[in-house]
Amino acid sequence: MRIGVLGAGQLGRMLALAGYPLANQFVFYDLSGSPSAGLGEVIIDRNHEYLKDFLARVDRVTYEFEHLPVEVAEIIAREKTVYPSPRALQVCQNRESEKTLFGSLGIPTPEWRVAESAVALEKAAEELGCPVVAKSNTEGYDGKGQAVLRSPEEAAAAWASIGHEKLVVEKFVDFTREVSVVAVRGEDGEVAIYPMAENVHSEGILRYSIAPAPHLRPEIQERAERYIRTLLNELEYVGVLALELFETEDGLVANEMAPRVHNSGHWTMDGAHTSQFENHIRAVTGMPLGNVSARDVSCMVNIIGEHGSTDDILRLPYAHLHLYGKLERPGRKLGHVNIVADSYEELVWRVKNCACFLPGAPELECSLTRR
Amino acid sequence: MRIGVLGAGQLGRMLALAGYPLANQFVFYDLSGSPSAGLGEVIIDRNHEYLKDFLARVDRVTYEFEHLPVEVAEIIAREKTVYPSPRALQVCQNRESEKTLFGSLGIPTPEWRVAESAVALEKAAEELGCPVVAKSNTEGYDGKGQAVLRSPEEAAAAWASIGHEKLVVEKFVDFTREVSVVAVRGEDGEVAIYPMAENVHSEGILRYSIAPAPHLRPEIQERAERYIRTLLNELEYVGVLALELFETEDGLVANEMAPRVHNSGHWTMDGAHTSQFENHIRAVTGMPLGNVSARDVSCMVNIIGEHGSTDDILRLPYAHLHLYGKLERPGRKLGHVNIVADSYEELVWRVKNCACFLPGAPELECSLTRR
Repeated sequence: MRIGVLGAGQLGRMLALAGYPLANQFVFYDLSGSPSAGLGEVIIDRNHEYLKDFLARVDRVTYEFEHLPVEVAEIIAREKTVYPSPRALQVCQNRESEKTLFGSLGIPTPEWRVAESAVALEKAAEELGCPVVAKSNTEGYDGKGQAVLRSPEEAAAAWASIGHEKLVVEKFVDFTREVSVVAVRGEDGEVAIYPMAENVHSEGILRYSIAPAPHLRPEIQERAERYIRTLLNELEYVGVLALELFETEDGLVANEMAPRVHNSGHWTMDGAHTSQFENHIRAVTGMPLGNVSARDVSCMVNIIGEHGSTDDILRLPYAHLHLYGKLERPGRKLGHVNIVADSYEELVWRVKNCACFLPGAPELECSLTRR
Repeated sequence: MRIGVLGAGQLGRMLALAGYPLANQFVFYDLSGSPSAGLGEVIIDRNHEYLKDFLARVDRVTYEFEHLPVEVAEIIAREKTVYPSPRALQVCQNRESEKTLFGSLGIPTPEWRVAESAVALEKAAEELGCPVVAKSNTEGYDGKGQAVLRSPEEAAAAWASIGHEKLVVEKFVDFTREVSVVAVRGEDGEVAIYPMAENVHSEGILRYSIAPAPHLRPEIQERAERYIRTLLNELEYVGVLALELFETEDGLVANEMAPRVHNSGHWTMDGAHTSQFENHIRAVTGMPLGNVSARDVSCMVNIIGEHGSTDDILRLPYAHLHLYGKLERPGRKLGHVNIVADSYEELVWRVKNCACFLPGAPELECSLTRR
């Protein structure tokens, strides 16, 4: 099958690498003007002139980033099957819609308000009780378009720094750790759910994912599975969906979802029987889903800003290197390393060894190292 | 690095799929006129007109099949680094040179003769004692260009059927099973050797490889390692080399070697920590070698001639499907399935289940099923 991918970054690249062995071909449709997928056919279309040409070259369409205009997805959906559907895209692009959907499906979220002015932001902060997190209603990712308010008086400065006309304001969640669940739904409605991952962020960027999440109570995994299954079915979703959650003393609280393969699922490339990329391609092309169980315990380490010592990483017998073919730039995701082990104890040591070769990699601060 | 691959079939395809995540780009140079790699840039050059263009686009050159003219490899080697070297190519293209090299390095081979006429073939068959196998000195692969002589009187017919001016005639080896060892040597001389595989052929085509080879005595693995290490060092080899052997009551007898990634090493894609494809790319680009140890026990099943029921194979939770994007044709390698398991007992059942969905797949007749 000829698969059209909207976007041409590293996620598209890894989708293609997983999809070629299932006899698919890939065409990327790039709206940014700086495609980095580095393989397959790429159509660069900054002015939306070549959409027809793109569609003529593909059988099915999917996307690797959710910040593309819903109108574009809808135009495409009139001509070709698009998975996931434009509705999923629409919900995920808009924090207000997303949180409303979560609420209507019984998925707990932090308490939240909408603010359309600095004054409204101040009022929301007062009502919720600081600290609160203000996020642009649309467009934010990797911690961009966000501000933490320690007191309501910081509202004017936060409003100015974010610079959006509509914010979603959330009460700060006192979480034990950040976790995520990645799942896939097939064209026939079959659902498969990966073991949850524990995620460690720093400066708003994901640094580490450990999977399966250590010391996870089975009822927490079951609860997360119920949430994501509800979302998948409600959206009649086809493909991979990721749901980021906070684990608290009282259970799980949903943070946000992403209608695509997700950074916190990169561990599946070496740590699960079927990677999230292969499963997304299987779903989008109407094939049966693959085995989502873990082969070992593993940790994904993001390579951010600088490549570090690639040769030293390649020498580690338990490390799997995945580079995106991008140039170094502060804060940029350049690749990731998947580290596998038989036990969490060994895993922690291996991750520390690997992090030595990645300048700027923060300490691994997770449920394993806090004990 | 920009890697030029001579040949554009499934081996080149899998090299590229393993090489992109290490930030390489691929250009294929196809002499057949029917490239099937299906990704990367392909230069089709039936009349050897575009070699310069190819070379201008790459940093290093390697190959995925050994039947290209040594002169071409030598021309290339004058301008760019070619790994493995043209000498390895030359030896592997010529059974007489190969067997002479084996002999000089103390690697046992079947007793053999050269025959340059039907009469000489008859004489060789008499001297060696039938049955003997006659093989064209150059160009044969996958059982093509070969004939078995049950008696010297069959010499004329065998000579005619093979139709080459020079044959190598080998005494038939009474083997317990066929095995192979795949190894890789880095640019700095580092050597890494995969666990041996047991191989099951049918109609001259590899059908199954089980790795690590079951019930293998450690001294046999050590002996094979010594042989392939000697070959790698003698040839100052860089890249993956495969050595096919017969296991007999008296030890190992070398059959032939292939100066490239090898079908009997495809299990490494899902059954080893680092695949043979990634290790070949690491070697060719001067990077450290990866971990060659097995993650589980595994069996590679070739998909020959017909695809069978892809959907049913994808439903098997322990199967990894690798398709080459080729059209069905009798005897053609269309893909392979890697099956992983925790034990050989479980592996045998899984392989049988998988083979149900592959029309024409022979019974798995190996050391595991003969017990």
